[in-house]
Amino acid sequence: MNETADHVRELARKARIAGLHLAHATGPDRRSILLAVADELSRADVRARLLAANAEDMHEAEGRRDRGELSVALVDRLALSDKKLDALCDGLGQLADQADLIGQVQLERELDDDLVLRRVSCPLGVLGVVFEARPDAVPQITGLALRTGNAVLLKGGHEARRSNAALVQCLQGTLRTQGFDPAAIALLEDRAEVDALLSLDREVDLVIARGSSAFVHHVQSRTTIPVLGHAEGLCHLYLHHSASPPMAARIAVDAKCSYPAACNAIETLLWEPGAEPALVATVAALQQRGVELRGCEATRARHPELRPATEEDWATEYGDMILSIRRIEHIDAAIAHIERYGSRHTEAIVADDEMAAATFLAAVDAAGVFHNASTRFADGYRYGLGAEVGISTGKLHARGPVGVEGLVTYRWLLRGHGQVASDYGPGKRAFKHRNR
Amino acid sequence: MNETADHVRELARKARIAGLHLAHATGPDRRSILLAVADELSRADVRARLLAANAEDMHEAEGRRDRGELSVALVDRLALSDKKLDALCDGLGQLADQADLIGQVQLERELDDDLVLRRVSCPLGVLGVVFEARPDAVPQITGLALRTGNAVLLKGGHEARRSNAALVQCLQGTLRTQGFDPAAIALLEDRAEVDALLSLDREVDLVIARGSSAFVHHVQSRTTIPVLGHAEGLCHLYLHHSASPPMAARIAVDAKCSYPAACNAIETLLWEPGAEPALVATVAALQQRGVELRGCEATRARHPELRPATEEDWATEYGDMILSIRRIEHIDAAIAHIERYGSRHTEAIVADDEMAAATFLAAVDAAGVFHNASTRFADGYRYGLGAEVGISTGKLHARGPVGVEGLVTYRWLLRGHGQVASDYGPGKRAFKHRNR
Repeated sequence: MNETADHVRELARKARIAGLHLAHATGPDRRSILLAVADELSRADVRARLLAANAEDMHEAEGRRDRGELSVALVDRLALSDKKLDALCDGLGQLADQADLIGQVQLERELDDDLVLRRVSCPLGVLGVVFEARPDAVPQITGLALRTGNAVLLKGGHEARRSNAALVQCLQGTLRTQGFDPAAIALLEDRAEVDALLSLDREVDLVIARGSSAFVHHVQSRTTIPVLGHAEGLCHLYLHHSASPPMAARIAVDAKCSYPAACNAIETLLWEPGAEPALVATVAALQQRGVELRGCEATRARHPELRPATEEDWATEYGDMILSIRRIEHIDAAIAHIERYGSRHTEAIVADDEMAAATFLAAVDAAGVFHNASTRFADGYRYGLGAEVGISTGKLHARGPVGVEGLVTYRWLLRGHGQVASDYGPGKRAFKHRNR
Repeated sequence: MNETADHVRELARKARIAGLHLAHATGPDRRSILLAVADELSRADVRARLLAANAEDMHEAEGRRDRGELSVALVDRLALSDKKLDALCDGLGQLADQADLIGQVQLERELDDDLVLRRVSCPLGVLGVVFEARPDAVPQITGLALRTGNAVLLKGGHEARRSNAALVQCLQGTLRTQGFDPAAIALLEDRAEVDALLSLDREVDLVIARGSSAFVHHVQSRTTIPVLGHAEGLCHLYLHHSASPPMAARIAVDAKCSYPAACNAIETLLWEPGAEPALVATVAALQQRGVELRGCEATRARHPELRPATEEDWATEYGDMILSIRRIEHIDAAIAHIERYGSRHTEAIVADDEMAAATFLAAVDAAGVFHNASTRFADGYRYGLGAEVGISTGKLHARGPVGVEGLVTYRWLLRGHGQVASDYGPGKRAFKHRNR
């Protein structure tokens, strides 16, 4: 373990130094790196190598899936293809063309004559990213990190290890040919190395944890490094009495069925007296899609075929084709239910009544609050952020889908001519505080 | 303990509801509250009440100081006076006149026709603030919270408990007369209540911890709520060979002696070959002020009267009239020393050479990086932020002195007309992503 800790600390230190070169490069240089990565990932020989490594991962995973050890969804996410690589190259190109966020003067203020304060944006430094068995995350995350001048230590799901290693090798090679130190990107091998990473609070500036809620909680409880990750996605859809029945049904089906394991899928449907037509249409549409519905007593009075929902259901992120349904008395009760059980991820109202929508949008405390739209829109690509490293349900630094802005911080730079603080104050010199 | 936990949870829940009214008020309403607080704190009868409560705290504290139980500095900070209250009223007036940060549309983007995304600023919600025995912090912190529509649970040092209670009563009274719920401000009584607060990760959005490094670490290790606080202030002053000797001496004296217990005071002086004239002037000035100097071997070769410095000295925040001095070979070694031992608070170079200054300002990773200015300028008032809740040495969310901006987050609000995410994607509808 000690050897592991030393090894990971060494990787992190080298990554920090390599990252400084990225940080001090120009915006166009950082842009060029991303375009070069996209070029590399478009080359036939590179693709052959990546797909061969992926085929080995897939072969092993398919065997385990057939023995019931891995889920179908995991194996789907594990697969690389020319189509996925094309999409990755497109994404890298879009990221390359985004405005560079490093070195921006966010504020410039003369504290006094010849004493000038500037707040200037800069990279965070070294990111530790732990993510699921999904190899396309490697160029996505690395692209976001490089675009913002950050170094990155990556640890992906074990099932994707060969694919990840091939991708990291390709990315490091591109860094080298672009004149940068490949140590800015490193791949960790196993959980012991992740544990070592989590203890490096001087060497690692931000941990990004992706995966199950349990996994994110595990990471948060083991480190004092700030963690960016969504611990949970317990989202609601609330049918106001003015809800259009076909719209309610369409949004509910999309929000539950298009990707039930996604964090932005809904887990509970709330309806109020007067919303019965919308409820009937929604229940029918969801039943047709094979969703298991669990209702409160008032809901079951209308739909006795539903399984009874218990208190536990309101607090459960199913991540599956299951939905709980509860009648609440009015909009305030819907807001209170969401305040109590929601995970502050994404919450939606279906209503034709603009006043009700305005009330809901003003009152609900969540990263995303939607009116007449599916919760599934809560996503970095859909928001037009270019890419995301994850969706944050915390309120600090970055909230909701986190793109490049979440990987940037700032420093306060002060240039003087020998001024000292004790010359200022009541009865002494006064600050001028002139913004420029 | 269970009763305490329930009581604090109830305070936090009431504070959240009361805070929502502040959040939904207009900017001018929030401004009026601060002006009303300043008016109240200017009234003779209110002042008489506050100063009487403070006199009781002072009487007890002075007795304990005389028995050696409390430091002189603590008792100084504890004292309220008309002058301090005048300064507080001035500060509240300035804060009132700052631009309102709530409800700002930070981004507005049409994802598609009739599907509009807005990123809108909003308060964090409920702040828990634990601070030293310094009653002027009560109106300062509460002012920052109210200006940004946040509710606040306060716990100040025990020695100031009567002063704090009188101040909170006055603040709550002003909220009431302004038509807001006084439950938006609550005062915790003891450490058990603080422990209870730290466990309320659903009810409390941000903990601000002020005080000693040990105390901040203690808080950080006991909660999963994000903590904003400076764990340490280990700042350096680096004398480049081009440093002006009188400027070096003047800055070093200010940065060490004007308030040695402050987090932005320096703990180590670095000098390089060629900077001997600046070193000599600085050592003489510091010795004249009675600073205990500890030197590395190379420093002691020139100044044999210095006590030897050990490895431990480089890693120590003295918070006292002690300074360690080390010779380093060149600017890169200075940067490396700071990277290794610094706390990323504030770092300064004295140099006439502009290239050296530019290198230092570009390379040092700290909240503040200064050229030819005292580290003591790292302060919310001096930066012109109006006020500060503390200085953050973390890199996320807010860095350096934290004013109103650190108490604000945002939500993503999406308004559609029934759109669903599965209608978009390759071969389907494309997003428009038009910024407005």
